[in-house]
Amino acid sequence: MRTVHGGLDTSEPRELGLQPEDVIDFSSNINPLGTSERVRQAAADANLSAYPDRDCLLLREALGDRLGVGRDHLLVGNGSTELIHLLTRARLYEGATCLLFEPTFGEYEAAAALAGAIIRRVAAEETDDFCWSIESAERIIRRSRPDVVFLCNPNNPTGRYLDCERVQRIQTAIGPDALLVLDDAYVSLSEDRWDSVQLLETGNVVILRSMTKEHALAGARLGYMAATPELIEYVRRLQPAWSVNAVALSAGLAALEDEEYIDAARQVIRSAKAYLYSQFTAMGLGFTPSATNFLIVKVGDATRVRADLLRRGIAVRDCASFGLPEHIRIAVRRRDECEQLVSALRQVLGP
Amino acid sequence: MRTVHGGLDTSEPRELGLQPEDVIDFSSNINPLGTSERVRQAAADANLSAYPDRDCLLLREALGDRLGVGRDHLLVGNGSTELIHLLTRARLYEGATCLLFEPTFGEYEAAAALAGAIIRRVAAEETDDFCWSIESAERIIRRSRPDVVFLCNPNNPTGRYLDCERVQRIQTAIGPDALLVLDDAYVSLSEDRWDSVQLLETGNVVILRSMTKEHALAGARLGYMAATPELIEYVRRLQPAWSVNAVALSAGLAALEDEEYIDAARQVIRSAKAYLYSQFTAMGLGFTPSATNFLIVKVGDATRVRADLLRRGIAVRDCASFGLPEHIRIAVRRRDECEQLVSALRQVLGP
Repeated sequence: MRTVHGGLDTSEPRELGLQPEDVIDFSSNINPLGTSERVRQAAADANLSAYPDRDCLLLREALGDRLGVGRDHLLVGNGSTELIHLLTRARLYEGATCLLFEPTFGEYEAAAALAGAIIRRVAAEETDDFCWSIESAERIIRRSRPDVVFLCNPNNPTGRYLDCERVQRIQTAIGPDALLVLDDAYVSLSEDRWDSVQLLETGNVVILRSMTKEHALAGARLGYMAATPELIEYVRRLQPAWSVNAVALSAGLAALEDEEYIDAARQVIRSAKAYLYSQFTAMGLGFTPSATNFLIVKVGDATRVRADLLRRGIAVRDCASFGLPEHIRIAVRRRDECEQLVSALRQVLGP
Repeated sequence: MRTVHGGLDTSEPRELGLQPEDVIDFSSNINPLGTSERVRQAAADANLSAYPDRDCLLLREALGDRLGVGRDHLLVGNGSTELIHLLTRARLYEGATCLLFEPTFGEYEAAAALAGAIIRRVAAEETDDFCWSIESAERIIRRSRPDVVFLCNPNNPTGRYLDCERVQRIQTAIGPDALLVLDDAYVSLSEDRWDSVQLLETGNVVILRSMTKEHALAGARLGYMAATPELIEYVRRLQPAWSVNAVALSAGLAALEDEEYIDAARQVIRSAKAYLYSQFTAMGLGFTPSATNFLIVKVGDATRVRADLLRRGIAVRDCASFGLPEHIRIAVRRRDECEQLVSALRQVLGP
């Protein structure tokens, strides 16, 4: 019933007799440098005793300046997860159709199912290295005529990253009355980025972004969406008052001034990822090259491997809920932490 | 369109050339002592970079111990406002009926309207000092057969506080298939409190509590509900993942250890409220005696008075959106701040 996600809740480490600080978390796809000092300070300076600004005005102005769009094109959410749920409530209903490119982030299906929508799927196969062909996607779109299409780019969990042209082909295929939700959550931690804001002009696209990954603010909850002012206003009406907390707003404003921190994180990720590729190759493990800060690795019985690693203080994501029971997903962390992961994985997988 | 609430957003002080710190906020019904040092420290210690515990396990365990209920009777929310919206989605629908005791907190109607419900009302009249008769309430309940009843107790904005017997009469009147949402948000800052948890036994009650008022955590967002495990589970399914942030969870745990801080706040409120009563009486202003930390005062043109006070750095709540265009609502703050309010009010109202 419950949507599976990475990240460790309290109960599981407790049952294993582990303290949360004893575990290195490779299961959440977070900036490996953690929260920057500047952002942490801004979070600590937030006013806890007053209601947060319901309009998120300062953050929307700063984001608008950054993205080159007016603030009426922007809505801030309690993490992008809240915005996913608000979007499905706004645009899906009993009998409407939602298209997913799978395997992908589980909250899309959870939110679409709550709205009563029929789920259609474009499935990427392992034999194709988890890339689906654009032609087959176009065929499925023509056949299923989806009302909402979720596209995670780079995709969680595969790390596959579509170029602008292919996203535009999907945008064209769905037609002007459907909505493409382009979830850019990991784009700033990725290589060879392109700017999706240009896609907003056609009106049938929402760009969803998370600040919880790039700035390691998963605990504070902060995401935003960019779309037409009409859609923004419609979705905003569904959002409970004060949904975005004051700590997230303050941290988010500081984060926008901290771009070089993300540049540094990308360098760490690049080098640690190269190390992981070489080790997995040496170990004879299949993996999918990733454009971003996580990757999937074929380990056999993923549930067992995850459990054995967790007992050694290493948390990874079992990909069974993605339909990949032989894969684990690993968030790329600092090189020294990746060395601990590789060492534990060698023990767990045996000779 | 938009639900009106107290609390100042960024735009209005900015238009008046005021900095937020130049304004004393009597418009939000928050603990006048602000956030305690212990709670502030716990908030600062929260781990921003990891996902918050989706189950809110530690806080639910601590709350359960405090209230004498199992943790499966508890759901934590992103402020009680989120829980109001989740409850209306769970139990209301197009054509269902929601009963409100007015004037009251505006988010109930906003959430019920989003769910498509018909709104019925029991109205308290100024001539009755904003108390409605229990007999007329029972009559309206029999006639309108509501699916959900919201009861804010003590009531926002009037400060009126029903005793247990009258709440139980409403609970009986609605029958076992309807749901009474008893919003206790202000109870811990009130005099002559009674414990509403005893009402849970009958199964048609949800108790809604906010930790944002009593512990001055409005910026962090934290509320919870207590109900049957079946209803808790049903509502939880509607809640987006990670809705409650890590700062709120950490602060909430510390707040539960800080009961004496609320005792101190009640003393401050009691003494400042007595001062306000005496001053309003001396000024010939009509006011409604309040059981809790805010009260309404009849000032004539409330919109004008609010605007004139705001220019003097005093924020109060214009009660026009409550259907009371001649009243303002004042949160009771420290005595010295109340003296500034009274002084500004004397200037604004003239001789």
